[in-house]
Amino acid sequence: MFTVSDDKLREECGVFGIFGHPDAARLTYLGLYALQHRGQESCGIVVADGAQLIFERGMGHVRDAFDEDRLNRLSGQNAIGHVRYSTAGEVSIRECQPFVVTCQHGQIAVCHNGNLPFAREERKKLEQHGAIFSSTSDTEVVLHEVARSRAANVTDAIAEVLSETEGAFSMLFLTPKALIAIRDPRGFRPLALGRLDDCWVIASETCAFDLIDAKYVRDVEPGEMIVINEEGLRSSHPLRPEKHAMCIFEHVYFSRPDSIIFGQSVNRSRHKMGQRLAIEQPADADIVVPVPDSGVAAAIGYSAESGLPFRLGLVRNHYVGRTFIEPKQSIRSFGVRIKLNPVRHLIENKRIVFPAQWDPKLGIHVT
Amino acid sequence: MFTVSDDKLREECGVFGIFGHPDAARLTYLGLYALQHRGQESCGIVVADGAQLIFERGMGHVRDAFDEDRLNRLSGQNAIGHVRYSTAGEVSIRECQPFVVTCQHGQIAVCHNGNLPFAREERKKLEQHGAIFSSTSDTEVVLHEVARSRAANVTDAIAEVLSETEGAFSMLFLTPKALIAIRDPRGFRPLALGRLDDCWVIASETCAFDLIDAKYVRDVEPGEMIVINEEGLRSSHPLRPEKHAMCIFEHVYFSRPDSIIFGQSVNRSRHKMGQRLAIEQPADADIVVPVPDSGVAAAIGYSAESGLPFRLGLVRNHYVGRTFIEPKQSIRSFGVRIKLNPVRHLIENKRIVFPAQWDPKLGIHVT
Amino acid sequence: MFTVSDDKLREECGVFGIFGHPDAARLTYLGLYALQHRGQESCGIVVADGAQLIFERGMGHVRDAFDEDRLNRLSGQNAIGHVRYSTAGEVSIRECQPFVVTCQHGQIAVCHNGNLPFAREERKKLEQHGAIFSSTSDTEVVLHEVARSRAANVTDAIAEVLSETEGAFSMLFLTPKALIAIRDPRGFRPLALGRLDDCWVIASETCAFDLIDAKYVRDVEPGEMIVINEEGLRSSHPLRPEKHAMCIFEHVYFSRPDSIIFGQSVNRSRHKMGQRLAIEQPADADIVVPVPDSGVAAAIGYSAESGLPFRLGLVRNHYVGRTFIEPKQSIRSFGVRIKLNPVRHLIENKRIVFPAQWDPKLGIHVT
Amino acid sequence: MFTVSDDKLREECGVFGIFGHPDAARLTYLGLYALQHRGQESCGIVVADGAQLIFERGMGHVRDAFDEDRLNRLSGQNAIGHVRYSTAGEVSIRECQPFVVTCQHGQIAVCHNGNLPFAREERKKLEQHGAIFSSTSDTEVVLHEVARSRAANVTDAIAEVLSETEGAFSMLFLTPKALIAIRDPRGFRPLALGRLDDCWVIASETCAFDLIDAKYVRDVEPGEMIVINEEGLRSSHPLRPEKHAMCIFEHVYFSRPDSIIFGQSVNRSRHKMGQRLAIEQPADADIVVPVPDSGVAAAIGYSAESGLPFRLGLVRNHYVGRTFIEPKQSIRSFGVRIKLNPVRHLIENKRIVFPAQWDPKLGIHVT
Repeated sequence: MFTVSDDKLREECGVFGIFGHPDAARLTYLGLYALQHRGQESCGIVVADGAQLIFERGMGHVRDAFDEDRLNRLSGQNAIGHVRYSTAGEVSIRECQPFVVTCQHGQIAVCHNGNLPFAREERKKLEQHGAIFSSTSDTEVVLHEVARSRAANVTDAIAEVLSETEGAFSMLFLTPKALIAIRDPRGFRPLALGRLDDCWVIASETCAFDLIDAKYVRDVEPGEMIVINEEGLRSSHPLRPEKHAMCIFEHVYFSRPDSIIFGQSVNRSRHKMGQRLAIEQPADADIVVPVPDSGVAAAIGYSAESGLPFRLGLVRNHYVGRTFIEPKQSIRSFGVRIKLNPVRHLIENKRIVFPAQWDPKLGIHVT
Repeated sequence: MFTVSDDKLREECGVFGIFGHPDAARLTYLGLYALQHRGQESCGIVVADGAQLIFERGMGHVRDAFDEDRLNRLSGQNAIGHVRYSTAGEVSIRECQPFVVTCQHGQIAVCHNGNLPFAREERKKLEQHGAIFSSTSDTEVVLHEVARSRAANVTDAIAEVLSETEGAFSMLFLTPKALIAIRDPRGFRPLALGRLDDCWVIASETCAFDLIDAKYVRDVEPGEMIVINEEGLRSSHPLRPEKHAMCIFEHVYFSRPDSIIFGQSVNRSRHKMGQRLAIEQPADADIVVPVPDSGVAAAIGYSAESGLPFRLGLVRNHYVGRTFIEPKQSIRSFGVRIKLNPVRHLIENKRIVFPAQWDPKLGIHVT
Repeated sequence: MFTVSDDKLREECGVFGIFGHPDAARLTYLGLYALQHRGQESCGIVVADGAQLIFERGMGHVRDAFDEDRLNRLSGQNAIGHVRYSTAGEVSIRECQPFVVTCQHGQIAVCHNGNLPFAREERKKLEQHGAIFSSTSDTEVVLHEVARSRAANVTDAIAEVLSETEGAFSMLFLTPKALIAIRDPRGFRPLALGRLDDCWVIASETCAFDLIDAKYVRDVEPGEMIVINEEGLRSSHPLRPEKHAMCIFEHVYFSRPDSIIFGQSVNRSRHKMGQRLAIEQPADADIVVPVPDSGVAAAIGYSAESGLPFRLGLVRNHYVGRTFIEPKQSIRSFGVRIKLNPVRHLIENKRIVFPAQWDPKLGIHVT
Repeated sequence: MFTVSDDKLREECGVFGIFGHPDAARLTYLGLYALQHRGQESCGIVVADGAQLIFERGMGHVRDAFDEDRLNRLSGQNAIGHVRYSTAGEVSIRECQPFVVTCQHGQIAVCHNGNLPFAREERKKLEQHGAIFSSTSDTEVVLHEVARSRAANVTDAIAEVLSETEGAFSMLFLTPKALIAIRDPRGFRPLALGRLDDCWVIASETCAFDLIDAKYVRDVEPGEMIVINEEGLRSSHPLRPEKHAMCIFEHVYFSRPDSIIFGQSVNRSRHKMGQRLAIEQPADADIVVPVPDSGVAAAIGYSAESGLPFRLGLVRNHYVGRTFIEPKQSIRSFGVRIKLNPVRHLIENKRIVFPAQWDPKLGIHVT
């Protein structure tokens, strides 16, 4: 069911949405907080107050980009938000989501987790027809397509456009009246539906629900579109069905172990991977040492299966960002240096297994 | 020659451009500093380094929005910048110029001083053809038209679009290779051409030249388009000629008295208006008191002509912004209170002439 | 009555105090705003809530150093505040007033406008007795003396210490229960008493009263100490009388023209000085040009007396700080450049009188 | 050897010092970064450039309080720095260390980890003799005593004062010429000496050495005073010997597991504590779950000894500060909520051992 794709870890972001809560912006802020590991380059929140969209975006972590003043400006009962992890694109406020535009279908905001390999070609076509782009993002292409759609309303336009779009997308749209969630037919990126009192909430990972005391209801299904407005929630399946192909890196690396992703506990997946590794790659070693933090569960699994002692041989400084996700190479090098420190007495003169995920930045592989 | 128009003081902004200087961003920063009185809501600078455009924008005054770090990120030899005075539009970073987009003609940045009454209608048409808008600004409409143009290059596209556009515009465009200045055929808003060593500079007012030791060469003429690139400066007149109609408020209120606007000293104009007022509206008064700062020259003229003593009866607190230009009504009210204080011994029991311009915020009219 | 002293323009600061108002911090903020011209290096406010002192200080202008959050932290009905113009001392947060300390007399805060030439010697003596200093300021010496005093209470201690102190001082002290104002026997620096509804207010200049709608009552007299507490205002004269010697630069340069200083209108003084100058130094000139802003009133006086036309030949950019008061030489040079621009058509080929005050930074003298 | 004391977890701070390195401030910044877990309320660095002391202090984390500009202002070859964890004292910039004062012995800066129960009484005595206090800190009392000492120089003064002081102190002093480290005779708080090329470095924990590639040499001994100046390092033992009594919470909770504290690996201590707990408190449970992060090593030890499986049942959000150390109760409550999330599938319907340290904020005890 899981597939290692060609996505090269691109477009690893987090999205969150809520409909019908008087404190929508603040709950979105908390939801993004819980999803911060999915992207630290920039973040943004847009709210709808029934009549119009208002948004605030900023570079860096949620806690730095938002303060009381900014949240207070975001009054409205419906909201979506985004944390971004940059890939090949620019590191700039221009790329920061949610994107908010006005078109013939009114105001539309969008948050996207995924990537659209064919967008670049489409972008050129749109430019030839006179389109202007404010970012380098694939997501802006979708907005153009929606704006150009002759569909009767924005919901139909989104369905129409995305039914013709290949690629990975778990997307949230916000209009002055509705919140729309849609997931590509392969279901490549996660998207979960939850309930907070009488409100619907949607998030990339269920750990965002836990933080705000919302309950996980189910996943948004591959190919499903959910429209939430004052009349309630309506589900449809406007996208052509495809074979499911969920991104294995969500379980291996991206997601938090306390999340349910693709209906399964991430922690359990990692534990099992560690066990499997111990069987497939038995090691003549003294101890198993996890690479914090995503490697802990796998190391426990390896230790459990192999019988080798599990030891905390690398200590992380928690006052820096996550190992994996940082935008610039120069920061990365410094970051690795500042983040992990060995516990010498544990690892000196020992044969060690690091049952780590493939991690291009750390260059650590399973021994 | 001067015309009181229907522009209701809208879109009073300042633009500055420079081509071919190693310190382009910093000189633009200084130019905007000198033009700060034309807009304090937001500001921005875009530079071209020969290959691409880089920009920084921010809310508030130039000195607050820009620091060394931001200026250092703007490396390139060509630059344009903008200070914005908001009118009916939103007070938001979305409205902040320069706008920078990518389209079939490549990257284009634009700064606009003026207003385009017909843009709203055009905007609707564009939306019906699938255009998306990121701001509420008329200026974005021009960018769309340029992007849709089938002209061979961006210069021709700009000429083509603006030759069909009615309204007031003194605009600067920047592309990776060229700086383009264009002024509407009536010449409603000012735009001056200057020289700094071997570089061309362009600004809304000549006071921006003074600050950076550039020399005023001449005005960009009504209907003229100037293209500056590595081959030098080329002038053309692609716009249909119209009767000149320059905005009288530039001389009455907007511009700094040390600027040459429409070929004439602003200070001299104000002095003459004061003299004229003394003839047309002689007052049986004790003293003439100027409303700082734009009213000083007129009050001197009134005093000179009438023989009534000129006295500084209102003192301004210089640690707040200019009287006239502030974005929000709530700030304005506070601002007036905090800005001007009467000198009691001068004005008590006196009959006073305030030869002030019409100023909707102060509610002060000629006695 | 006025004396040009040896103080070399040192220690030009502004102080403000208020007793018994629920919005004490915010009114102090506005008072400092009106006194901003007296010092732009740093500022601070301390409030007493009846039990303890709370303070906030910052570098730069009042409007930059204080925001809603900081003001909200300053809850209490009594407050004093300070704007500082640095002289020989360090430019550092350490030097920022009010100083707040705890000693055997309880908590004491102090704001000082003036200078104490003998403090340096006294400081050495105190150090030899084991005192520690946190700043380079003369004012801290006074605090040490007060702390060491065996007087029965802080009021008596202040009177005792300052009756033995030579120098210029207009000082405000705040304790958890009282506000104390004291002025040196020569009355070198100004200090005015005002009334806002049922509250007493005290400020360096009366323009601070105007802004908050307080009424000027009278000056704190040279040698007078005023103690305001819940029982009301009590005046005494604990300091040895001396010949009055008020600083002439307050009228020439420091103060705002709309203030009453030493019982006289600053604007009227400047006007008279201009007239006197016209008599003593008649000039064979074409026009009189003021050096903004402090030179305007004198230039009007010169023009009135001499009959030479008054013209606004120098224009100031109002988005920078005041000409005279800036801490660092390097900033000054840039500041002069950026602040004043000549109106060419007015001054070219003219013989001009600049009836300016002596201004060491501008290097402009009366012709 | 370890003692559970009455210190109630007060005055848990981190100190770092370096002598003779051209990049002293930046290395101190990194050292404080590694010690951030010991205090997040405020931080500060002071450098000596041979002639004088320069300092910068700020609220919050090291990475937020310091930027390039602030570090660039700190030019000098010798430096000390501090991260503070507030206890009963005020949360205010006044309390922020290093304290820097001038006295008869010249300029002195101090950083303190520890607490001095008798300081409050001494403080009253000093006030009766006329001392003024700028903070509520015990450390300021020591500075007063040093300033009042008749000793020939600052080194002798420090030795004299601290030989009469009871309490816990690991202190660093910086003067324009020397760095002085001193540790109380019981050795209650840690202090380690290291070597970076030709420079001496001193830190609360050895993890600060690891980050900057310095080598751990030895602990500063209980009762030892080390003076480092241009002539090199000189050790003496001016304090009355006492029975050693090191704080057990350093090993249980405060320190990082990768540090060597009191000559022993913190990780090993925790592992052993977990093993001991498994023997003394065997549990009829299904799994062992650590409370991140300080409880991981103990949980591994418990699991190893008991044979119960070790599972990661609580996940921490790494984008917030450390569990234990936050200044305000209101923040703490929010913090616990936002920091830890259970992995449901692991802990539901399980009997669990949390081999946690006593943690007053989490309220989690060994089951």
